[in-house]
Amino acid sequence: MSVLIHSPLPCKVNQSRRGKISDDVAADSNKFREGNVMENQGLVLWLTGLSGAGKTTIARGVEHELKRRACLVEVLDGDVMRTNLCKGLGFSREDRETNIRRIGFVANLLSRNGVIAIAAVISPYRSIRDEIRDMSDRFMEVYVNAPLEVCEARDPKGLYAMARAGELLAFTGIDDPYEPPLEPDLVCHTDIETPEESIRKIVDKLEYLELVPPPPHVEFFI
Amino acid sequence: MSVLIHSPLPCKVNQSRRGKISDDVAADSNKFREGNVMENQGLVLWLTGLSGAGKTTIARGVEHELKRRACLVEVLDGDVMRTNLCKGLGFSREDRETNIRRIGFVANLLSRNGVIAIAAVISPYRSIRDEIRDMSDRFMEVYVNAPLEVCEARDPKGLYAMARAGELLAFTGIDDPYEPPLEPDLVCHTDIETPEESIRKIVDKLEYLELVPPPPHVEFFI
Repeated sequence: MSVLIHSPLPCKVNQSRRGKISDDVAADSNKFREGNVMENQGLVLWLTGLSGAGKTTIARGVEHELKRRACLVEVLDGDVMRTNLCKGLGFSREDRETNIRRIGFVANLLSRNGVIAIAAVISPYRSIRDEIRDMSDRFMEVYVNAPLEVCEARDPKGLYAMARAGELLAFTGIDDPYEPPLEPDLVCHTDIETPEESIRKIVDKLEYLELVPPPPHVEFFI
Repeated sequence: MSVLIHSPLPCKVNQSRRGKISDDVAADSNKFREGNVMENQGLVLWLTGLSGAGKTTIARGVEHELKRRACLVEVLDGDVMRTNLCKGLGFSREDRETNIRRIGFVANLLSRNGVIAIAAVISPYRSIRDEIRDMSDRFMEVYVNAPLEVCEARDPKGLYAMARAGELLAFTGIDDPYEPPLEPDLVCHTDIETPEESIRKIVDKLEYLELVPPPPHVEFFI
């Protein structure tokens, strides 16, 4: 990270580094108990998992629910970022790392300004995910976990078929590695959970950790 | 811009497009008069000009002053962005355009979440600057204007000397064009103004347009 870009917020440093988000935010919980509105708390919500595991679907669902709660949210989708930030990068290890670092850089810029930046990126390498965790003020890693067979059977973009046919090289899970998180903050088993269940699980955790406000409710007066 | 990335704020669309920021924000001024605190109003503050004209100095000064006023601010400095977002890009017209578009993309992500994103980038091509103006919700173009001779005499990074010696090709102002803004929202004549004067001019304009609050003051009770 460059010294030229400063955080305008008095950000809490992620002291536990490899620790769980739960530990990090525990100290913040008083704020909520004291009745302050918990708005504009930034966070990097990093969804990692194989192609077809359901990262984008979950990211969009979480985005929808958090916007309903008046949070600032941006989805940084791997495919979209490849167009806007990473055009020209291929799928070599080096290019992938650059791609993931760039998304991490932007997610961090957003999160330190109070935005919940949801990255939905395969991000196959553990070391780079850890690097982004370390540079982020608040980071939550969600492992969107479905077995390769399930992802391949879904194959929403037809990419697995192309990879099997040798038309796509260095495809994660086929001929390129995926390193699952060792200590994810949350796991969504998208082979046995519905998307709604996974979305609910993430939002509930964010609410439990008091990073997002509870859903708005309407009171009826009779 | 992709449809996958949504604005969480009900952003005002820059209807005048090529028009002045003054026209755009005039309609907002009621908000201030009604006594609302004007916080977290995003803006892309785009500083364009030759290398050595003083963009980074001014950007840092404006950043400092706006942080004092509790605004959310990020400086997107051309050199820093080249490291974090645009590594591998050269100085061909195509690569420069990609570089500027990426910075515009990130500035827009930040500004639509209430951040004042200050881009300090040579950005020599009028058409790309206009493209970024068009995609931004709120955009102010500041022409950091010093004659080439002055910039070359300053040559803070020794780049002009290298360009003149043929060690650096396609250097803006020497053997690559700089297209000055035709209708900048503000011009800082950094050959005759001090940095403090240029910074003050920008901050005063932002304050006049009620995009930033007035400076904090201390009252003495005797």
